[in-house]
Amino acid sequence: MGVFEKKSCYVIAGASRGLGRSMAINFAKKARRESVMILLSRDMKALKEVETEIKSSCQDVKVVVSGFDQGDLDEKKFNNIFENIFKENNLSIDNFEQAVIVHNAGTLGDNSKYVKDLVNVSELNTHFGVNVTGNILLNSACLKFFTQEKFAHRYVINISSLTAIKAFKSFSLYCTVKAARDMFYKVMTEEEPTIRVLSYAPGPCETDMQIKCRENTSDPEVKQMFECKY
Amino acid sequence: MGVFEKKSCYVIAGASRGLGRSMAINFAKKARRESVMILLSRDMKALKEVETEIKSSCQDVKVVVSGFDQGDLDEKKFNNIFENIFKENNLSIDNFEQAVIVHNAGTLGDNSKYVKDLVNVSELNTHFGVNVTGNILLNSACLKFFTQEKFAHRYVINISSLTAIKAFKSFSLYCTVKAARDMFYKVMTEEEPTIRVLSYAPGPCETDMQIKCRENTSDPEVKQMFECKY
Repeated sequence: MGVFEKKSCYVIAGASRGLGRSMAINFAKKARRESVMILLSRDMKALKEVETEIKSSCQDVKVVVSGFDQGDLDEKKFNNIFENIFKENNLSIDNFEQAVIVHNAGTLGDNSKYVKDLVNVSELNTHFGVNVTGNILLNSACLKFFTQEKFAHRYVINISSLTAIKAFKSFSLYCTVKAARDMFYKVMTEEEPTIRVLSYAPGPCETDMQIKCRENTSDPEVKQMFECKY
Repeated sequence: MGVFEKKSCYVIAGASRGLGRSMAINFAKKARRESVMILLSRDMKALKEVETEIKSSCQDVKVVVSGFDQGDLDEKKFNNIFENIFKENNLSIDNFEQAVIVHNAGTLGDNSKYVKDLVNVSELNTHFGVNVTGNILLNSACLKFFTQEKFAHRYVINISSLTAIKAFKSFSLYCTVKAARDMFYKVMTEEEPTIRVLSYAPGPCETDMQIKCRENTSDPEVKQMFECKY
């Protein structure tokens, strides 16, 4: 039985734009009836548009949107996030066969800066907060809520990148968090044998982030590389 | 001409214990006369003992110790750190042939915890602060001060670990920061062709950190692996 044939709860963090939005819409199209899509993002306006788009074509799937800022490192906002979403939306946790968590929320960091230019504490704290710490906290909240007892099949998908394994000039902030996350999920793979963990690098996608990659970089060589892809 | 034959300024972060202490003592023994060792650590008492030990056997080398907490993310403490150390110790920046920076300060993180147990914001902030953010800030301060104009030869050594590339259960915090730092220095290697950058994993050393590795781990399999090494 394929992944999309089970009655599932999908969680997609960073679902309002780019790859996350695309995954939300396409997963919903493929999802079995009575599945639930939980879409998280800071941008509720854009998220509600994704919800509308899904609802217009996939009546059999329930869509829930929730304002969530992965960089807002307040323990209370991570603890019980899914308990609260289920309660507020009158969702029952029973009778799911599967949970699919997609860790897609993330930021590029300022790629106009080289390593030597990284002197701003608050910029660094924000970057590592949203991309690493916040992601770890969201992941812990997922593991606590989506237990094997309730969800026999569990997938955790970390949206990775070529930058997790290949260094690019002016991309130290992005490369560093992507490498950190790949390793974090490698450790989880060892620790949680009942969870299928996937770090997936989709390759270049024409998203808002990709535009920033080529337009903001200080490095002419890297800029040219990004421009040649199109 | 070998690395130790040049009149050098050595900076060793985390020089009071373990590998950093050992590098400080052994680099001083090999260093050319009139070289300067700048030793940084939170623990001034232990650092002064290292200073005494070096001074007792290496009279030709100047040793400077400075209290420095890589986890104290106050921009003012990173900005001008080396300008201040040189001024306070009446060191002249002229006539050095080489700078050797060793990024050795770091912490293990709580290896009694599995990925699923990582729910404490302040613990995560402290861990990524001292090991990643603080290290990036110290490195920027180094690049600003140890310019190629003043130091024709520059080496930056990132103390790495097998955990940067291999996942171990209960070591997610350590693995994640070591992978992050390896990638950060890979980007720097691309950006700064005039600096020799080395990420060096020394293998298991019988240090205080190594004792914690085997004694605190929650994972019996990993515990046994560490115990078998001795």
